Amino acid sequence: MAKRGRSQESGEDRLIARYFKPLARHPAALGLSDDAACLKPPKGYDLVMTVDAVVAGVHFLPDDPPASIARKALRVNLSDLAAKGAKPLGFLLTLALPPHTGTKFLTPFARALAQDAQTFGCPVLGGDTTATPGPLTISISAFGTVPQGKMVQRKGARPGDLVMVTGTIGDAALGLRVSQRASLEKQWRLKRGQRAFLVDRYREPRPRNVLALAVRRYASAAMDVSDGLAGDLAKLCRASGVSAVAEAAQVPLSPAATIALATRPDLIETILTGGDDYEILCTVPPSRATRFTAAATAAGVPLTTIGRIGRGQGEARFVDADDRALRFGRVSFSHFG
Amino acid sequence: MAKRGRSQESGEDRLIARYFKPLARHPAALGLSDDAACLKPPKGYDLVMTVDAVVAGVHFLPDDPPASIARKALRVNLSDLAAKGAKPLGFLLTLALPPHTGTKFLTPFARALAQDAQTFGCPVLGGDTTATPGPLTISISAFGTVPQGKMVQRKGARPGDLVMVTGTIGDAALGLRVSQRASLEKQWRLKRGQRAFLVDRYREPRPRNVLALAVRRYASAAMDVSDGLAGDLAKLCRASGVSAVAEAAQVPLSPAATIALATRPDLIETILTGGDDYEILCTVPPSRATRFTAAATAAGVPLTTIGRIGRGQGEARFVDADDRALRFGRVSFSHFG
Repeated sequence: MAKRGRSQESGEDRLIARYFKPLARHPAALGLSDDAACLKPPKGYDLVMTVDAVVAGVHFLPDDPPASIARKALRVNLSDLAAKGAKPLGFLLTLALPPHTGTKFLTPFARALAQDAQTFGCPVLGGDTTATPGPLTISISAFGTVPQGKMVQRKGARPGDLVMVTGTIGDAALGLRVSQRASLEKQWRLKRGQRAFLVDRYREPRPRNVLALAVRRYASAAMDVSDGLAGDLAKLCRASGVSAVAEAAQVPLSPAATIALATRPDLIETILTGGDDYEILCTVPPSRATRFTAAATAAGVPLTTIGRIGRGQGEARFVDADDRALRFGRVSFSHFG
Repeated sequence: MAKRGRSQESGEDRLIARYFKPLARHPAALGLSDDAACLKPPKGYDLVMTVDAVVAGVHFLPDDPPASIARKALRVNLSDLAAKGAKPLGFLLTLALPPHTGTKFLTPFARALAQDAQTFGCPVLGGDTTATPGPLTISISAFGTVPQGKMVQRKGARPGDLVMVTGTIGDAALGLRVSQRASLEKQWRLKRGQRAFLVDRYREPRPRNVLALAVRRYASAAMDVSDGLAGDLAKLCRASGVSAVAEAAQVPLSPAATIALATRPDLIETILTGGDDYEILCTVPPSRATRFTAAATAAGVPLTTIGRIGRGQGEARFVDADDRALRFGRVSFSHFG
């Protein structure tokens, strides 16, 4: 069993008071001094609830900066809210800390979490801090609001809809690989700064919450790209009972990914199936595409049409310039076989 | 990094489909087939939100039965809802599974979770399943409802209020000790079946959700006893800005704890500070004590008055039969020094 330390005011209380109470500004949090948060749900809105955990050695590298770990833990959840068209409301935090986790980790971690909470309008509402003999593990339940009945679901895509994606795809998966094997920087002929760019894309998602309202207005179905574009598009198609054809050449790439792919064409599989993109994948009826694109431009979010929805039962194909289907060993990331 | 396996439908999808979709009967869960749950909050109610994690080797023993682990993970959260006077609504589940966690664990785990979800009216709304190179870790965010403004807080205790506690105290802490050192069974002179009783009390909390409505009606302040009665009473006093004096001899004990304490009087410290009781500690104005007691009797929940609230700034004293204050090395459990 873990070491048990005791005192009049417990170590856990002190840890929470020092690092996390300053974050608890929402009235529902009750200053983190009760067993539970108490939220008055806004009238006329549904509550969108999502939970995602990140584990050292699985979702981030153990020596990633504490601030990056904090941002990743919160942002993977913010990305789900964005894709559902929801406005962030707040979050519950579970922190399982390995032995000897001290102020060197907790100070920058809590500071980055506070910054993101402020930036994204998503304050901490409550939490639980515990010891673990294992790796640092952070689970966040995040809540958002949508007008009643207006959450954008994975189902809802219709034949004829355009398949669109924000930002660029594949950077995080390439970033993970190049951070694990430094020699790839040369093999891929990356230019100065491109390795750092890719690694940063792995470490710190940039969720598209500024686009949430437009997604709600214009998308027929949406999800965030977390487990790989190919697999996630297949999931959306299965949920909607449709098929999709997407053109690999239309998938938006960063300059770094473009160079790597030109050097090593087989990297297309890493790019399309690697995951950790935290971009929004959505389907949009052609009649709304112009307005959606205008909204994305206004929000400063790159938006690209990569394919089209057809009739079917869940198939999602990526085709090359000659209209031949790409084949992957696996279409999406999974922790389990 | 963890082993990554891939396929058309990912291993994680299959795992969720097989073990957890059958649990997802609440409409908000969307059959666990979307990125998020979508809850329509009931009108006129506040949402009570709590989160607690359990980690193998910290909150339960790695060889505890999977069904017990499931029950503990959910019930420690149900206990918070009960103490806040909230009616359970549903929960989000994070499961971090060590390598080779298979059907032998997951089948009884999911079955017990489903049973408890049914029994307590607290269905799964969503979740996240991930791999971990560390110990089995389960984090649950649970939600409940109270009529607007009616959540019972830790603050609210007034001088003159009675201090009351449900059930019996100390069994779980004794159960943990005797399950770690078998020789204690003889040393404590436990009778046949009492060791098993104590170990069961450690493994499987019995949250007092049947008493939630009465707590809301009659208690001025409440919390669940998770980190030890002495420390938790001090927390309640600090939150309320009052003091408390409780009589150690009035603390309700099971027959097993009574025998152990008679044999080893110093076990009073384990009993009062060991934690894992998951009983309700509350304060009740004397004018409402009779009705509260009647409600507890009707619900079949033992309820005992152990002390009284006075003026002060957060002190909580336990006194012996001669009115001398007991002194403990530490008053409550903490994972951190």
